[in-house]
Amino acid sequence: MSALKGAAVIGQSGGPTSVINASAYGCIKTALENENITKVYGMCNGIKGLLDDKLFVMDEEDPAELALMKTTPSSALGSCRYKLKDASVDETDYQRILEIFKKHDIRYFFYNGGNDSMDTCNKVSKYMLAHGYECRVMGIPKTIDNDLAGTDHCPGYASAAKYIATSLMEIYHDARVYDTGMITVVEIMGRNAGWLTASAALACAKGQGPDLIYCPENDFDLPSFIAKVQSIYDQNGKCIVAVSEGIHDKDGKYISEYGNDLSNARDGFGHAQLGGLASYLANELKKATGAKVRGIELSLLQRCAAHCASGTDIEESFNAGKTAVEKAVEGVTDKMVGFVRDTVDGKYVCKYELFDLNVVANTEKKIPADWFNATKDGMNEKFVAYALPLIQGETDLPKEDGLPKFVHLKKVLAK
Amino acid sequence: MSALKGAAVIGQSGGPTSVINASAYGCIKTALENENITKVYGMCNGIKGLLDDKLFVMDEEDPAELALMKTTPSSALGSCRYKLKDASVDETDYQRILEIFKKHDIRYFFYNGGNDSMDTCNKVSKYMLAHGYECRVMGIPKTIDNDLAGTDHCPGYASAAKYIATSLMEIYHDARVYDTGMITVVEIMGRNAGWLTASAALACAKGQGPDLIYCPENDFDLPSFIAKVQSIYDQNGKCIVAVSEGIHDKDGKYISEYGNDLSNARDGFGHAQLGGLASYLANELKKATGAKVRGIELSLLQRCAAHCASGTDIEESFNAGKTAVEKAVEGVTDKMVGFVRDTVDGKYVCKYELFDLNVVANTEKKIPADWFNATKDGMNEKFVAYALPLIQGETDLPKEDGLPKFVHLKKVLAK
Repeated sequence: MSALKGAAVIGQSGGPTSVINASAYGCIKTALENENITKVYGMCNGIKGLLDDKLFVMDEEDPAELALMKTTPSSALGSCRYKLKDASVDETDYQRILEIFKKHDIRYFFYNGGNDSMDTCNKVSKYMLAHGYECRVMGIPKTIDNDLAGTDHCPGYASAAKYIATSLMEIYHDARVYDTGMITVVEIMGRNAGWLTASAALACAKGQGPDLIYCPENDFDLPSFIAKVQSIYDQNGKCIVAVSEGIHDKDGKYISEYGNDLSNARDGFGHAQLGGLASYLANELKKATGAKVRGIELSLLQRCAAHCASGTDIEESFNAGKTAVEKAVEGVTDKMVGFVRDTVDGKYVCKYELFDLNVVANTEKKIPADWFNATKDGMNEKFVAYALPLIQGETDLPKEDGLPKFVHLKKVLAK
Repeated sequence: MSALKGAAVIGQSGGPTSVINASAYGCIKTALENENITKVYGMCNGIKGLLDDKLFVMDEEDPAELALMKTTPSSALGSCRYKLKDASVDETDYQRILEIFKKHDIRYFFYNGGNDSMDTCNKVSKYMLAHGYECRVMGIPKTIDNDLAGTDHCPGYASAAKYIATSLMEIYHDARVYDTGMITVVEIMGRNAGWLTASAALACAKGQGPDLIYCPENDFDLPSFIAKVQSIYDQNGKCIVAVSEGIHDKDGKYISEYGNDLSNARDGFGHAQLGGLASYLANELKKATGAKVRGIELSLLQRCAAHCASGTDIEESFNAGKTAVEKAVEGVTDKMVGFVRDTVDGKYVCKYELFDLNVVANTEKKIPADWFNATKDGMNEKFVAYALPLIQGETDLPKEDGLPKFVHLKKVLAK
């Protein structure tokens, strides 16, 4: 295929991770260095920035400062949660995108995000093809949820998993320090897939993890949960539980919603609870056991704790962005870069391959049923074998005054 | 003074920190190496282990494993919240302690904890003196709260402060990633003193911190707080707030009690159990502003996140334990080791000095009034100048399989 000359644009979408900027940096750096790419733009807040013609000129950034993107959490270009309508329903956004593409001679479109972002890529790609505008479209995955189909794992997952396992180990030491009883409930992100919560099992593999792990892949039964905790507590005087925010009963009702009902009944609060699953379960356990119970919600920290990122994750995320540019320049379009796991000399190796966008966009990958233990309240060795290689290696995040040195971009807007 | 030969015992008490084990290790290692100290015991769960004659023989531990204490969070020997009665009220515990001292020929008593532990030291010291039993008693401070009198700062504070400032910087990047509005409330530990919450100002000094910081040193007024957040939110579309769990209104009522009756539960010392403030304030702000609001409680993580400990804190904590032994062997008794700040060639230097136990035990050090900004919703440069040197340097926590390698003691019980 002949070389396609023109500008490139990259955008970031969806919830941030510790390493989404590593992917963006892999993409931007590789694009800046490629002779076929005439200019590199960054979308201000994802596709919304493209629609608003708010594009940052990445060529204007200082290369040393730009390199800090590799270890800076969250989305340095800004993110959005904007979903493009089907072109068959409303063409307006696509017409606008084509207009902006033509204005800046954009021939390379890179979009860095989760399922919805791959859907955006797919739609943009199809529209440009249908309208005869030559443009190479590549998706670069990211999600701490690790629920994208096809790819062995997702950029961002391993860093969150490393933070969760590390924090669980630290909580393990803290929560058993007294000679008095203590139950600790740790709430972890993951609405439909339990990959993040399951990563608490990496702490168990070190003998310093939770006693029980509950993921949304299995129905959650409150009475039997309470009985199990009670039994462990009676035996050890301590019990640590890791629960996914998305655990639900056999009727599909989120356990976190039980708490809303309760507070409605109790004091007439009408507003939605703000991730109160841990406190809800803590209260239920307190009532049932009489023990001292503490609920902990890892909250935003699990997706932005770049200081505890996985070195493997950072490198793979960077390479995902780099590969997207290289493949696009080679002529590939309408694909997502993904990871394939290989073993060389008994060691984990990551290979970068291409996946169909429409498959990725419309599937959600859950934990295989046979990676849970028999009682569905913990993970077995298959999960540990899967996840452990991903969290290896430390970040080389630069420090200044004992604190992280994160990127500060100039963000020069394109005229 | 003549050399006092005999065994030493060390105990840990109160809430854990990331570096209390560094102090204990400094004490144990120095004691093991000292020729006047015949044996080194560790109390199982503080003074309760001493009363129960549950003492670990530290001489039996593998030196390489023991060295991991320096970077392991929480209290490796176990902690307690047991308060000794005044000997004038009930002598039972003191008689028992004397009995155990005699049984094991304990002539050195080291206790590692906060105000209450210094009180324990003081009482034990006085009793032994009154009963003619020669024993050197030394307090080794620890508290993330940083509220001990005399000493410039407390072991454990800086590591918590480093974690808090780092996390706040990461939250800053995460919480402003979307083009839509967002208010974030971060709840930080500290019942009566705002040192921990104030450390969020270190993130502000990097331009990546909260907009507002509220400490218990100043009365908190809910309506004017809401108005301030609203005004910042209207201007920037984002607002991040750091609040101490201990903020209270002008009548001394905790704000957390406004919405949370569970805080009536009290611990062994009669302190109110606080928590749930972040969600309470988040709900209030949501009602008032209509914005998306997220409440985050840093919870236990701030006191046990050894992976983000301050190298300076680890060294100073180790040296506090080491100094306690050295001074005791030299003949000092009834003192606490503390820190005095010095400046050499324009650089921060920590000196180790001795403080009277009874002063430390009965005073609570708060942030000086002139370290707050004029509107009492943030810190000024005096606080930053105080705290910044303390968080310098990183931990050299050993890793295994990408996770921390924490100490695992044999805990051989003395007969």
